[in-house]
Amino acid sequence: MTWLDLADDAPFDAWTLPYGVFSTDGEEPRVGVAVGSWILDLAPLAAVEGLDGSHLFAQRSLNPFLAAGRRAWDAVRGWLLEVVTESPHRDLVEPQLVPLAEATLHRPFTVGDYVDFYASQTHAENVGQIFRPDSPALPAAWKHLPIGYHGRGGTVVVSGTPIVRPSGLRRVGGASGDVEFGPSLKLDIEVEAGFVVGTPSALGSRVPVSSFEDHVFGMVLVNDWSARDIQAFEYVPLGPFLGKSFATSMSPWVVPLAALEPARVSPPPRSPALSSYLRDEGPWGLDLTFEVLWNDRVVARPPSRDLYWTPAQMLAHMTVNGASVRTGDLYASGTVSAPRPDSGSFLELTWNGTEPVTLSDGSRRSFLEDGDTITIRATAPGPGQSRQRLGEVTGTIHPTP
Amino acid sequence: MTWLDLADDAPFDAWTLPYGVFSTDGEEPRVGVAVGSWILDLAPLAAVEGLDGSHLFAQRSLNPFLAAGRRAWDAVRGWLLEVVTESPHRDLVEPQLVPLAEATLHRPFTVGDYVDFYASQTHAENVGQIFRPDSPALPAAWKHLPIGYHGRGGTVVVSGTPIVRPSGLRRVGGASGDVEFGPSLKLDIEVEAGFVVGTPSALGSRVPVSSFEDHVFGMVLVNDWSARDIQAFEYVPLGPFLGKSFATSMSPWVVPLAALEPARVSPPPRSPALSSYLRDEGPWGLDLTFEVLWNDRVVARPPSRDLYWTPAQMLAHMTVNGASVRTGDLYASGTVSAPRPDSGSFLELTWNGTEPVTLSDGSRRSFLEDGDTITIRATAPGPGQSRQRLGEVTGTIHPTP
Repeated sequence: MTWLDLADDAPFDAWTLPYGVFSTDGEEPRVGVAVGSWILDLAPLAAVEGLDGSHLFAQRSLNPFLAAGRRAWDAVRGWLLEVVTESPHRDLVEPQLVPLAEATLHRPFTVGDYVDFYASQTHAENVGQIFRPDSPALPAAWKHLPIGYHGRGGTVVVSGTPIVRPSGLRRVGGASGDVEFGPSLKLDIEVEAGFVVGTPSALGSRVPVSSFEDHVFGMVLVNDWSARDIQAFEYVPLGPFLGKSFATSMSPWVVPLAALEPARVSPPPRSPALSSYLRDEGPWGLDLTFEVLWNDRVVARPPSRDLYWTPAQMLAHMTVNGASVRTGDLYASGTVSAPRPDSGSFLELTWNGTEPVTLSDGSRRSFLEDGDTITIRATAPGPGQSRQRLGEVTGTIHPTP
Repeated sequence: MTWLDLADDAPFDAWTLPYGVFSTDGEEPRVGVAVGSWILDLAPLAAVEGLDGSHLFAQRSLNPFLAAGRRAWDAVRGWLLEVVTESPHRDLVEPQLVPLAEATLHRPFTVGDYVDFYASQTHAENVGQIFRPDSPALPAAWKHLPIGYHGRGGTVVVSGTPIVRPSGLRRVGGASGDVEFGPSLKLDIEVEAGFVVGTPSALGSRVPVSSFEDHVFGMVLVNDWSARDIQAFEYVPLGPFLGKSFATSMSPWVVPLAALEPARVSPPPRSPALSSYLRDEGPWGLDLTFEVLWNDRVVARPPSRDLYWTPAQMLAHMTVNGASVRTGDLYASGTVSAPRPDSGSFLELTWNGTEPVTLSDGSRRSFLEDGDTITIRATAPGPGQSRQRLGEVTGTIHPTP
């Protein structure tokens, strides 16, 4: 129980304690932790509490704290849980509480490499049926390894950043049709869970499944905006490029892995049997429930608990060839989808635009229109019987200039 | 004419003047420029010569100088050309010459995003025939846009870094064969020209073909090591991932675009006509000739002058959807290949291992063996009738641990 007075509808409880970077008017961006409707201003609080490492928080990004490693993450979280639950801390803490409503939230960390996986079987099968109706729905390698590819780290933006409709080439009127250039006509979302690396690894070495918690600091919500018409034309044989690289949004608050302990579940059974480097060591399925708001209507509630591949497997796969990871590397699950209507993309929800959805104002949509706002939220089991809120990522479509 | 006494076989002439980062025993890495068999120690030289911006060179990477922009690049190159040609500079310059043989060369810049294109028609057709014998050799979009994908920026290493043989999953015995895990049996190279971004662009804006020289600082030689067996199993539908991400080597010396003026040629005619954003503005084909040494035998001399896409088009394409570029972003041409034996990969040179090559010691090779060393060099037309050397990138294969 916390001594803080938390409203039931506050953005966060006193358990999740996600990290972000915020500023208030005229002051430098710095590291904070969200609790209830407040932000704990971490550098001055750590200083008055006598905690080592206060300098890690007087920073414009989380990267130095991410690089400090698991022992530091655990120590700070242990201290924070004490700070918000034990009332003797109250006098030191209260002066360091900044109302969330008064803060500007910044991109929480500098992204190194960004990798996007394809871990939802429902999503992979749906996309296969829509894009490659004459081939097996699931790619041949899909159940052998977590298929993934590199995205553009430099265009990962924080929630709230305007999303400018991308232009590109597409084919119109079937496989032998004309190629034309213009603003995307099939602008879409992808609902994903993203994972940020804290502790780097050395080139030529591997990070086993069992070392996931030593390297990964926490989770963000990701919207991997996708221009389906551009993607469909360009992606053979080297994968998606301009159809994805214009922007990827992430939540401003990074939920530490430790806060997700109550959300851990066993992943689904796998067949065929996995190569030894991919075998689970402890359950790292995550029981998250996303919620997708298209303007003000909730159009889908995709659950992540059945993802075929866990984030621990993704990290092991990404490094099994000796590739190193760096502090700030981001990797994401790929679209989290369940059978309709709980799709994590509009490609699936509207079946490539053939079955539009109706919004609250009665208008119908196949893909995104200029001015549309998408907000993705997520919740997960918290300690005891509670349910924790994991933040949100939002973005509004701006017209092509 | 330079006052420096340059041997005919010196690594560089007095025109190319490439930039790198070097150190000598016990001293900090710093920026230098190679001339003949020496390195000009730029920070102290700039200081004694009274040049503004000496601080840009007392750095462990080129990134601050790259970020300084085209006006600074042009000013420094103009000064350097004067310094090495006008003998009154001699007394100030000579104390700042470090023998190349005594220096350690470091990764010249920190890589942001790394994008790899697919600009050689010969290469694309060869790979199509080998990997997809039942499909058209050239992907449907290939002549409409420069196909490319994101690679792993964090594993771009400097020439000389050991290349550890990657492990991964592959299928053996045809499309319905078993899946097995192990060290790659088809470790290959890709000969490429890489381009580094200096001046960043804003998210949501485009960099037109005509602004290439305002954003791109220079060129490096790239070896995009590739594990063909891993790549062939994993790459559908999202493109190459672990088959490439274990390491990409680049030369330590970055050749400024201005030094390549004498190497500019018209690109080949294109049909069908290009979308307006891809139309050439001034010839940016480059007449480079690469040389591939497999241990001590030259096995191929791939020329780049016939690449279908220019680096100016690649940059325009990469940003036409509004994606931004950052200082230190690297993009490469894709394998530079001509008809055999002037292939830029061993996949092509040995036709997927079916036609091995014989090395100087009489041994035969299909793909790389542990202990093999690959060195890629390049030359290009220089001023007048001269031919300039553009450096080299080398790497030796180490066994899987």
